[in-house]
Amino acid sequence: MDHQQTPLFEALQLHNKVRPISFHVPGHKNGGIFPQQAGQFYQPLLSIDVTELTNLDDLHSPETVIYEAEALLTDIYQSKQSYFLINGSTVGNLTMILASFKENDIVFVQRNCHKSVLNGLKLAKLTPIFIEPDFNEEWRVPTGISKASIEEAFQAYPTGKGVILTYPNYYGFAFDIKSIIDFCHLHDLVVLVDEAHGAHFIAGDPFPPSSLQLGADIVVQSAHKTLPAMTMSAFLHVNSERVSRDKVRFFLQALQSSSPSYPLMASLDIARSYIGTYSDIDKEYLKQQIKGFISELEGISSIRVLSHTTSGGDILKIAIQSNQGLSGYQIQKKLESVGVFTELADPNNVLLVFPLLKSKVEFRLFEITNSFKLALEKKATERTKSAKISIPKTKQTLTSLMVGYKVQEVTPCKIIPINESIGKSSAEMIIPYPPGIPLFMEGEEITVEKVEELHQLLFLGARFHGGAYLKEQKIKVFE
Amino acid sequence: MDHQQTPLFEALQLHNKVRPISFHVPGHKNGGIFPQQAGQFYQPLLSIDVTELTNLDDLHSPETVIYEAEALLTDIYQSKQSYFLINGSTVGNLTMILASFKENDIVFVQRNCHKSVLNGLKLAKLTPIFIEPDFNEEWRVPTGISKASIEEAFQAYPTGKGVILTYPNYYGFAFDIKSIIDFCHLHDLVVLVDEAHGAHFIAGDPFPPSSLQLGADIVVQSAHKTLPAMTMSAFLHVNSERVSRDKVRFFLQALQSSSPSYPLMASLDIARSYIGTYSDIDKEYLKQQIKGFISELEGISSIRVLSHTTSGGDILKIAIQSNQGLSGYQIQKKLESVGVFTELADPNNVLLVFPLLKSKVEFRLFEITNSFKLALEKKATERTKSAKISIPKTKQTLTSLMVGYKVQEVTPCKIIPINESIGKSSAEMIIPYPPGIPLFMEGEEITVEKVEELHQLLFLGARFHGGAYLKEQKIKVFE
Repeated sequence: MDHQQTPLFEALQLHNKVRPISFHVPGHKNGGIFPQQAGQFYQPLLSIDVTELTNLDDLHSPETVIYEAEALLTDIYQSKQSYFLINGSTVGNLTMILASFKENDIVFVQRNCHKSVLNGLKLAKLTPIFIEPDFNEEWRVPTGISKASIEEAFQAYPTGKGVILTYPNYYGFAFDIKSIIDFCHLHDLVVLVDEAHGAHFIAGDPFPPSSLQLGADIVVQSAHKTLPAMTMSAFLHVNSERVSRDKVRFFLQALQSSSPSYPLMASLDIARSYIGTYSDIDKEYLKQQIKGFISELEGISSIRVLSHTTSGGDILKIAIQSNQGLSGYQIQKKLESVGVFTELADPNNVLLVFPLLKSKVEFRLFEITNSFKLALEKKATERTKSAKISIPKTKQTLTSLMVGYKVQEVTPCKIIPINESIGKSSAEMIIPYPPGIPLFMEGEEITVEKVEELHQLLFLGARFHGGAYLKEQKIKVFE
Repeated sequence: MDHQQTPLFEALQLHNKVRPISFHVPGHKNGGIFPQQAGQFYQPLLSIDVTELTNLDDLHSPETVIYEAEALLTDIYQSKQSYFLINGSTVGNLTMILASFKENDIVFVQRNCHKSVLNGLKLAKLTPIFIEPDFNEEWRVPTGISKASIEEAFQAYPTGKGVILTYPNYYGFAFDIKSIIDFCHLHDLVVLVDEAHGAHFIAGDPFPPSSLQLGADIVVQSAHKTLPAMTMSAFLHVNSERVSRDKVRFFLQALQSSSPSYPLMASLDIARSYIGTYSDIDKEYLKQQIKGFISELEGISSIRVLSHTTSGGDILKIAIQSNQGLSGYQIQKKLESVGVFTELADPNNVLLVFPLLKSKVEFRLFEITNSFKLALEKKATERTKSAKISIPKTKQTLTSLMVGYKVQEVTPCKIIPINESIGKSSAEMIIPYPPGIPLFMEGEEITVEKVEELHQLLFLGARFHGGAYLKEQKIKVFE
């Protein structure tokens, strides 16, 4: 198939060409009703922010241009059926969980998963068994899980129905997912993969393989994270007959707006075309640019640069750590002061997502690395906040919820001081954001290590989702 | 509060002013990585399609500019707490249903509701009692429900927990919702309102009152339908203490992308400012423009014009019916041939949504009505397809599901010819789209009248969501 084509985007352009008169939604009427000053940003995109008009098809019942655009997507990812999502990887994770499992099913879940996976478990009222991931001492982050831990889980819970994996992790770490998938299929376990950060893996070496290529049954990808799609747009790929496509379709139409955004959908068409035409020359150019960038950063004495150029991980992810005892949050702030905005900070790292350049796109290496130098070579005047916090490593490989989801619904809660909460079950999610991986989960036991990590994160200035009572040093627990 | 202000949009402009260097998601990097040809539409909006950066706040945990923007929204709608939605009224309807009711609760539901209401009922596993709406003979559409029907429902099911209303209907009909709300509150029933088509009602006369002003407990509005917001953006208003804000927050963060679109959110800020500064002069101008438009259309002999200018309904909604026996679908096609795109066609009507003009915005009355004349005054060469189909009116006011949601999960299905399905229970939703109001619902009895209406709609060329087997004249039913 010809991946230069963008059938949905082309249909929108064609519609726009007739200078249509709009007596339909949206209320801005192809941009005609919009405050002028705001129009400076929103025009001309509003001219294609339309609705399910003749010749523009319907996401929830595709027959023409959206059907063709999804066929091209299916072709490039070589799935059974791929779908455009306009409610993020979030709706992909919810859908794959709700479509794959029934109430009370036992599922094995990689613990360092995104909060949307946990919300999916809760909405589906499953019985999760969490598997503790490995830990990388250099980056000081949890990475992936091993085949041995899945074997251990399956031995302990032989009625388990499937696994939910996160591959790669937020920091670009891949792991041997192939042997896990093979083991699971041997034992009739369905394999769900949150591949939010790996939409570009399909381009092949030097990127890690996509879990789609390795046989995962259903895979979610955030197209907007590394491909040039608008924020909130994503892909869902059904890759085997183990997952019911009827159920997937049901949840997608139920959980996504019945007025999906055409600019978002067309940006998925454009992003698919971008990766579908990504060439060896592009990859060579990208590798050179990354190499040059890292080499320049390595010239800055105050930092250490971590990368995946030789590790088999995602080369787009690059981390910076301080040599002077600064936290990631402090480095991030310095970079922002010179106009460089980064993906996330954690106690130790600042994470960068390098652009997926094509060969003709200029990367202003000199100007950009100068900004890094300007920010990071300045004499540190601020007090350092001790980094290298001890990341709690649960001794157990497997943990289950102290209070299951169905019991949670009928269990009263109370709000108590954090320091008195150890041994109790959290009644709220507390999530450092980004990356969005919960530190405390609803129903999970609160441990000494977790409370220590929370105190460290608060001290260092991390941002959170949830944790409404943190300011009062309190937490909601089940009674 | 000053509704000229747009704190979120202003923060995005400010961020853009520093010419930031992006090492974060999205992959298009402020628009730098984007195919040039597509950029003609997508630029400059991509420069503000960013993520949760410093100073840009976080939809799921708002503290600064999104908090302020939602405070302005709360102020103009005078609710307890209003929220920006970026997954359409769909997520608003799901959230209000899931947050207000528990599994098996009996709820009274206006039958001509949007499919997202039905999906909410199913996901929450409720026991709906459907209330048949009144029927307008002139427009030939179902409208609202009466206080008497709610009283009848409550008498029949005194353990009912609440009602779900649709106000106004798709065609702009309002009804006496105040007396229903008052009755419900007297009997401790919570009132949920899908006010998707009424975000502009807050501007006051000549528009009907908003159900928020009349005391509904929780209300959803599609900001994009009549206000100048981008497609897929909406508002949710919690209006009383009968609804748990904790639960609302939980479902909003669970069911909406954790990477919400900033252009969509900022367009909500802009839309709120637009309606927050809508003046009496604007309303006078709008009324004059609508009057002039209707008067011009009335000069076209082949059509009848239906409007709400004296009925107390929404004056933005105008319908056209043929005087020559054409169906709405046929009129719609004629209008499209001259570049006029309408909101929807049904067997009898074409529905127009008039723009919510402000006084300084020109409406090209002459040019636009000329297009209508050009399309509709041409001699009809096509064969007419009989309109005025008999809309089935269920004899019963109240109906319940033949097969409840929980039983559906364990009941096998089969696919049978439509004509053999009467008396059985549908196992799929079949939804003429737009307007998105299901003709067949899962678990509902299939009646002679419904089958007849389906045949008519198929004959006239209606479009559907669901109905995968319609092409083979078949339907999925529970065994």
